[in-house]
Amino acid sequence: MENSTDRQLAEDWWRTEIIRMQPGEIRIRGYAIEDLTGRIGFAQMVWLMTRGELPTEAQARLLEAAMVAGVDHGPQAPSIAISRMAMSCGAGINGAMASAVNVLDDVHGGAGEQSVDLYHQIAAEGGTPEEAAAAVLERRAEAGQKYVPGFGHRFHPVDPRAPRLLALVDQAVRDGTVDGRFARIGRAVDAHLRATKSRPVPMNIDGATAVVYAELGFAPPLCRGIFILSRSVGILAHAYEQSLRPDRNKGPIPRQWLWRYDGAGDRELG
Amino acid sequence: MENSTDRQLAEDWWRTEIIRMQPGEIRIRGYAIEDLTGRIGFAQMVWLMTRGELPTEAQARLLEAAMVAGVDHGPQAPSIAISRMAMSCGAGINGAMASAVNVLDDVHGGAGEQSVDLYHQIAAEGGTPEEAAAAVLERRAEAGQKYVPGFGHRFHPVDPRAPRLLALVDQAVRDGTVDGRFARIGRAVDAHLRATKSRPVPMNIDGATAVVYAELGFAPPLCRGIFILSRSVGILAHAYEQSLRPDRNKGPIPRQWLWRYDGAGDRELG
Amino acid sequence: MENSTDRQLAEDWWRTEIIRMQPGEIRIRGYAIEDLTGRIGFAQMVWLMTRGELPTEAQARLLEAAMVAGVDHGPQAPSIAISRMAMSCGAGINGAMASAVNVLDDVHGGAGEQSVDLYHQIAAEGGTPEEAAAAVLERRAEAGQKYVPGFGHRFHPVDPRAPRLLALVDQAVRDGTVDGRFARIGRAVDAHLRATKSRPVPMNIDGATAVVYAELGFAPPLCRGIFILSRSVGILAHAYEQSLRPDRNKGPIPRQWLWRYDGAGDRELG
Amino acid sequence: MENSTDRQLAEDWWRTEIIRMQPGEIRIRGYAIEDLTGRIGFAQMVWLMTRGELPTEAQARLLEAAMVAGVDHGPQAPSIAISRMAMSCGAGINGAMASAVNVLDDVHGGAGEQSVDLYHQIAAEGGTPEEAAAAVLERRAEAGQKYVPGFGHRFHPVDPRAPRLLALVDQAVRDGTVDGRFARIGRAVDAHLRATKSRPVPMNIDGATAVVYAELGFAPPLCRGIFILSRSVGILAHAYEQSLRPDRNKGPIPRQWLWRYDGAGDRELG
Repeated sequence: MENSTDRQLAEDWWRTEIIRMQPGEIRIRGYAIEDLTGRIGFAQMVWLMTRGELPTEAQARLLEAAMVAGVDHGPQAPSIAISRMAMSCGAGINGAMASAVNVLDDVHGGAGEQSVDLYHQIAAEGGTPEEAAAAVLERRAEAGQKYVPGFGHRFHPVDPRAPRLLALVDQAVRDGTVDGRFARIGRAVDAHLRATKSRPVPMNIDGATAVVYAELGFAPPLCRGIFILSRSVGILAHAYEQSLRPDRNKGPIPRQWLWRYDGAGDRELG
Repeated sequence: MENSTDRQLAEDWWRTEIIRMQPGEIRIRGYAIEDLTGRIGFAQMVWLMTRGELPTEAQARLLEAAMVAGVDHGPQAPSIAISRMAMSCGAGINGAMASAVNVLDDVHGGAGEQSVDLYHQIAAEGGTPEEAAAAVLERRAEAGQKYVPGFGHRFHPVDPRAPRLLALVDQAVRDGTVDGRFARIGRAVDAHLRATKSRPVPMNIDGATAVVYAELGFAPPLCRGIFILSRSVGILAHAYEQSLRPDRNKGPIPRQWLWRYDGAGDRELG
Repeated sequence: MENSTDRQLAEDWWRTEIIRMQPGEIRIRGYAIEDLTGRIGFAQMVWLMTRGELPTEAQARLLEAAMVAGVDHGPQAPSIAISRMAMSCGAGINGAMASAVNVLDDVHGGAGEQSVDLYHQIAAEGGTPEEAAAAVLERRAEAGQKYVPGFGHRFHPVDPRAPRLLALVDQAVRDGTVDGRFARIGRAVDAHLRATKSRPVPMNIDGATAVVYAELGFAPPLCRGIFILSRSVGILAHAYEQSLRPDRNKGPIPRQWLWRYDGAGDRELG
Repeated sequence: MENSTDRQLAEDWWRTEIIRMQPGEIRIRGYAIEDLTGRIGFAQMVWLMTRGELPTEAQARLLEAAMVAGVDHGPQAPSIAISRMAMSCGAGINGAMASAVNVLDDVHGGAGEQSVDLYHQIAAEGGTPEEAAAAVLERRAEAGQKYVPGFGHRFHPVDPRAPRLLALVDQAVRDGTVDGRFARIGRAVDAHLRATKSRPVPMNIDGATAVVYAELGFAPPLCRGIFILSRSVGILAHAYEQSLRPDRNKGPIPRQWLWRYDGAGDRELG
């Protein structure tokens, strides 16, 4: 009796609603893997895996657009630079991708998630989107939260990815795929910041993908997850490109250079 | 003069053929990001990023099928289990994905890459695929390499993903997308193993995706990379599912259990 | 002019107070590395690197005791299990250590840091340690924070490491190395919990190392860092032991077993 | 019957010779943890954990010297730079350390291990160390292996850590702690390279720590592991220092700069 409990215990410890397997059989959310393969696209698979049901083709296309938009931002992005540095240290593709994905944390990878959270807060506020955005943003400003996730960019005056994604959402509203509530909220935030900030902080890729994810009903933590899937493509491409170069042990700055030392003067051990 | 060299040095250190940026502009392999977004699919973007040119739609569909097939193999796979364990330790989605992706190393994530290598070796051997496969596999066996990457499975007598992927490759041969050379090589390996091994070691997911990637012309290291993109979906889905559970600090075995200790008997410090 | 600014910019970007280098010279916090090597111990080096000055020998001994105590807690600890799993996946020692260290996050590795925070909160409360501990813990309980970091253990009724570390702190108080303020606070928390909880939640390794680190003046985030240095020894030892075993691709549960699937029934793609 | 086998199976899966636990009891290699704590140093614990027995104090001191020497090489080292970059991305200390430790792979962290391997090869060659070194290095050179692990440095004409560590080994030979065989081998390699190379490639930190580890009998993979423990101190110190700075999302180069793009010219999607 006790022993059958042991096995039960171990099986329960690892329970899941995602995948069922028996020898010769793999079912994802109830569907046989061989039925899915070749019949649904990658974005549909992402949706099925994370949410349990298949999206419509139109929903999948909108998700896919957001996933395409975020793949790369060049070696100034720490994730991309780390991928390249790791390869030059002798890491395999998996190691380089891991070190890089790992830094997609709150600051470098969390803005999309935080932006969806913000939109949800505004949606819960009541009133028109414009009124609600103003109320929420003013409360944030009063609490000293100057940074508005999904808005402003340290490099691009206008992030070229944002208007394109918003246009795709508008089209999805017209064909009935999504209802447009969060697009309006996103634009209300943009308008409020335009009216109240001294320098422009227009919607960026994170604010725009957040509109897409919120319209499609993704929970905030999944937004970071999907961004990671997207950026992993850039991380992989840069790792592979670096692997074809002769650099051996590539630090952040060429070896002839040094950093600035600001610490204690030379001293002797007592 | 020296100083202008300094900046050049730093710019050269980080040169790339993948992405060009200026304030307000992002171009991937020459294409403006806003032109790509909403017009090409995720699999096409993976191809463009890693290989420099866009694939045809038929090529992208075949790549996408391989990417869909490999997303998950449940918590017995170390990558999936680690993702769940990491979440219960307090990691964010990025941390859980990193710890998990990291273990997709030679044994757990490298079989596809090794299988493409094997197919290329057979292709370079000369003679019919059947003769070449026999020659290469016999040399491997003589050298003591019993394990043939991409064939045999510790759990599935027949891996349901392999015949489905081969059928999709056959279809792609019929419509002229690929030429079928590596499908024939893969089947020649399968037939040789069937004829010479005492227990069945049929083609598995890695051997089948390797056929797809080789037919599509991907370099072997990219095969591991694309498998990682694919498995990252499962890693994300399981991380998210775990985050909704109350488990706090989930080890590999329920806390009531222990491991077996095989070491030195109790002793005192001298 | 602009160019000399460029180089300055890059040097400033990477400024540090820890290490100064020139060709042939390495100075750590002002000391030549060859003077430190062979003359100071590892715990002293940890202190110098993280805090800028050398500790006394007595301070270093107390730090070292805390670092020795936390090296391992066996394969039920996710960090240790992940290290072993990673090796069986083909990872190198560095990869296994990275995947494992990564999960020493808030739940699995953060209790020491949180416990120091708690002690500092109590220290800032005013009154006797006993009154302050009661006040702070009652506020926490009222706020629904049932978990008290550093107290209670899911496996050990009494954690054998805690009383030993407290005894070493007491000795360090007697010889004037530390003043004992945080030992009294830690014991006050323990006594309060003993008096108010229905089941025992005595001080554990995290609560005890937190006393040590707080007495020695380490900032809370460094407490997690030092625990990571300590646990890295166990992670390394288990990785190495696993590398000597024949297991190939070792998941959390033996391959004959499965997990429990709780999801959708079998279904067909529409 | 079958069920008791189940539990046995799970226990065997996780067997270890390192740690034994029962509720209230933790034994490392047979010693109670509370007996070790405060009585042995960190380097002794590293030795006990990885090798199963306690070292003498003199052996531990020599190991400790090697561990002190390698803690840091500044932000030009990718491991150190990645640690700082990760913190600025919002990672916790554990995440930053993991991303950084992960890149201590064959090129950036493997030279010590490879150097021990080389010394063992020379030791197995027969003849005097000088003859054996010449024979092994000539065979390597003929095979096109130009790089000799543990010798030469891209930055230091003479690595100040190497002569200091060799002097400590000499002292340990004099007091009978080690026999000096590998010190002689290391010096023979150094002399051979001095005699045959056009530019100086003197013994560096990796070649010198390799002498220490080989003299002390550590297996080559453990040499990388111990270097990782050592460098983790630098990784931690730099992570912590960076956490006190205001940089938000710090890439490898200041944001005003860009990389050099070498790829396809601007083009339109067909």
